Amino acid sequence: MMTSLLPEIKTVLQKTTDIVICCHIDPDGDAIGSLLGLGLTFKNQGRKVQLVSPDGIPLNLRFLPGANEIATNFNTSSDRIAAIVLDCGDLDRLGPIAQEVGVLDCIINIDHHPTNTLFGTINWVDPKASATAEMVFYLLRDLSIPVSKNAATCLYAGIHTDTGGFRYQNTTAQVHQVAQQLIQTGVKPWEVADRIYDTKPLSQIRLLQEALARLQVTSDGRIAWISLPRQVLKSCNEDDTSGLINYPRMIAGTELAILLKEDDNGQVRIGLRSRELIDVGLLAHGLGGGGHPRAAGCVLPGPLASAEKKVLAVAQQALQEAKG
Amino acid sequence: MMTSLLPEIKTVLQKTTDIVICCHIDPDGDAIGSLLGLGLTFKNQGRKVQLVSPDGIPLNLRFLPGANEIATNFNTSSDRIAAIVLDCGDLDRLGPIAQEVGVLDCIINIDHHPTNTLFGTINWVDPKASATAEMVFYLLRDLSIPVSKNAATCLYAGIHTDTGGFRYQNTTAQVHQVAQQLIQTGVKPWEVADRIYDTKPLSQIRLLQEALARLQVTSDGRIAWISLPRQVLKSCNEDDTSGLINYPRMIAGTELAILLKEDDNGQVRIGLRSRELIDVGLLAHGLGGGGHPRAAGCVLPGPLASAEKKVLAVAQQALQEAKG
Repeated sequence: MMTSLLPEIKTVLQKTTDIVICCHIDPDGDAIGSLLGLGLTFKNQGRKVQLVSPDGIPLNLRFLPGANEIATNFNTSSDRIAAIVLDCGDLDRLGPIAQEVGVLDCIINIDHHPTNTLFGTINWVDPKASATAEMVFYLLRDLSIPVSKNAATCLYAGIHTDTGGFRYQNTTAQVHQVAQQLIQTGVKPWEVADRIYDTKPLSQIRLLQEALARLQVTSDGRIAWISLPRQVLKSCNEDDTSGLINYPRMIAGTELAILLKEDDNGQVRIGLRSRELIDVGLLAHGLGGGGHPRAAGCVLPGPLASAEKKVLAVAQQALQEAKG
Repeated sequence: MMTSLLPEIKTVLQKTTDIVICCHIDPDGDAIGSLLGLGLTFKNQGRKVQLVSPDGIPLNLRFLPGANEIATNFNTSSDRIAAIVLDCGDLDRLGPIAQEVGVLDCIINIDHHPTNTLFGTINWVDPKASATAEMVFYLLRDLSIPVSKNAATCLYAGIHTDTGGFRYQNTTAQVHQVAQQLIQTGVKPWEVADRIYDTKPLSQIRLLQEALARLQVTSDGRIAWISLPRQVLKSCNEDDTSGLINYPRMIAGTELAILLKEDDNGQVRIGLRSRELIDVGLLAHGLGGGGHPRAAGCVLPGPLASAEKKVLAVAQQALQEAKG
């Protein structure tokens, strides 16, 4: 599973004194989990590392060991600085720090997105990996660096979330083996899961109720969607909407699930999921967004009703073509 | 992990020509998964086996290989018959077939519930096992009987559901290793998960919306509950309510979650979940029910309001005592 790039990565690690490890904006469990898993392990070795999540850390991931050591920016004073960019399909996914990272002499790009643009000076991209955290596990193993319980907890969180709790198509025998080895360091899976999934503010449950009241399904049952206007979202925070898209997705007979969220600027952020026929990564790409075949997203101009109309039209067409 | 009872079990399997394998009423993924995992494997060997689930099979488990070979009763004509009872804490859990099984000369009791009453002639009870399906895996491994992809799919389903998708406290390094070995036979985890969890009738999503509209939380936030009157439940089937209790359970700060369902006879079926302080198995036992420390249930006489009052009073008291 490990990369032939190992010697190159080793060389960089040997000659670099200052490492910036960073992940993408709107970070998920894999972004933060792989950031901390790698970061804590390097720190444990006495390395100088800066951990950067340009958008901060979602509430439900702040319990992870080392979360308080993550900053939203980094110090570029050193001239022997290298960046390790985790879980980013392209450099733009670094948001406000994209430019600062982009000018560095050495960028190690570690990612599992098939659409990765190979923006690094070293690019280790493995779409077969379930999560970037799984890749970090292999990297540390092949560098013969021991992983502490704390770091393992973060990597386990990354894998658990990116496989949807060992439910998605990226759930392999290998990833279960990695999970086994992480747990053997002392990770308590139920604590990780309890904090990540099973501890939700009451506001989130109330929002779910509001969202389900707005659930719509096409007459043929193939597309299900939820449109959330600004005023509903106003009373909750961003994290509250995570996972909402699973509800339209799980309805029997649904091929395509869509979640539309109207933001304060009147733009509409759209999440897309599919079961098997539609490549929503392509669909989102056509609307200026991107992602995976089964999970993708884009942003459309408002108002909500017109964005809804547009994305439904494109979805219907994609479905027609897939059937045809 | 395997039992010292292996020689005894081997002897029974050698001298028996007819085996009845059965699971508990109100069957879950582990009941059906271990029943089919063991049953299909024995059938593959050319053994005469009868597979019995006295309450039938929940909708979302009917996709499992061999599900159509499960009956709700069995034929007792043979005099060299043995029963293997799976995942049952006591014989009553066999419901309508309890008596017929109880009179057999040989009952192999395989279960992971700590409250198991050791009702068998051979009792292999291992509360450390995540699922009865995990125990079946060890049994077949130690009997050196190969497990087909189909049987492995059923065992994987049992483990996935009983660990709550590798989220509950019973998620161990070993169970991930078992999962790895099951997947290596060709199991597609996402297909299992998709069918079990992510394919729900629209009626179930609509019921969730109704249930969330009835979600209540005590002023201190420690107890959250949902009471579902008969008229709400009337329009959906029993399966639609599965998983509802997770919603009160997941609210941040909640120690105890309760789901009350008023049935057609005016009785109220109550599910109980706790996080860490309360042993709901004991609590349910005090109300004539039973279960695990973190998940249990009981039935109280109606009407709904009085059952709600009673269970809340007992819950409040248990919480007080736990704090004190």
